[in-house]
Amino acid sequence: MSDLPVELRDLIESGPLTHLSTINADGSPQVTVIWVALNGDQIVSGHMTRHQKLRNIEREPRVTLSFLAPTKPGEFLHQYAVLKARAEIGPPTEDTWDLLNRLAKVYITPDAEFPVPRGPGYTVRYTVERIGGVGPWVASG
Amino acid sequence: MSDLPVELRDLIESGPLTHLSTINADGSPQVTVIWVALNGDQIVSGHMTRHQKLRNIEREPRVTLSFLAPTKPGEFLHQYAVLKARAEIGPPTEDTWDLLNRLAKVYITPDAEFPVPRGPGYTVRYTVERIGGVGPWVASG
Repeated sequence: MSDLPVELRDLIESGPLTHLSTINADGSPQVTVIWVALNGDQIVSGHMTRHQKLRNIEREPRVTLSFLAPTKPGEFLHQYAVLKARAEIGPPTEDTWDLLNRLAKVYITPDAEFPVPRGPGYTVRYTVERIGGVGPWVASG
Repeated sequence: MSDLPVELRDLIESGPLTHLSTINADGSPQVTVIWVALNGDQIVSGHMTRHQKLRNIEREPRVTLSFLAPTKPGEFLHQYAVLKARAEIGPPTEDTWDLLNRLAKVYITPDAEFPVPRGPGYTVRYTVERIGGVGPWVASG
């Protein structure tokens, strides 16, 4: 997809804790909660170690990112986004730490430093292929 | 698993919006956000229509349920639970509507009625096989 809807961009930039669903070698689903950022019309995440989710992505790049919009008291249909995406892991780079340090300011506090020693990590880029869920980012309403 | 930790039980009973990850026929992950309840040491959800997630469960009962604990300002490691579970769909029954009407009081407002006409639905039972994430419900801390 070339363009992410502005409401979805705003939600991503607000720092939603995001459920990354990948596929294990045995075909079962694996989920971890990650930080995400926008990079143009791609989504990116940073990882300091080569956890299972990265090994899963190497085998099967089709993943799902899902996150809630802020909930409003008394609403029936809570808004959320489900993004089907193709994930790609970049080579080790300290740019990943810079990304995580920038995201610490979104996800922890505005003056937080990423509390892990600086070093090389892996940045994953997600190309969004389909947008679902409930909210103005879903074409059908 | 026979016993869910009390902190996890409390979190489930507080009404966390839960990401249900299933596997599509093409092997890719599918995610929707659902309401959940405890039923003894199982988790249950109710569905008034036979959506894709139920068709996925029929084909592949290994699913993941994931949800966040309430976030606290300034925390680095946000608490969340990832439950690997085996899902089983029950026969159509109006008990499902009663479950959803009970959950409306947890997920919408204490006096809410489930805003869908009463009728038969499908209750899914999840037997939790492994607990992960970040929080006191994870054996390793």
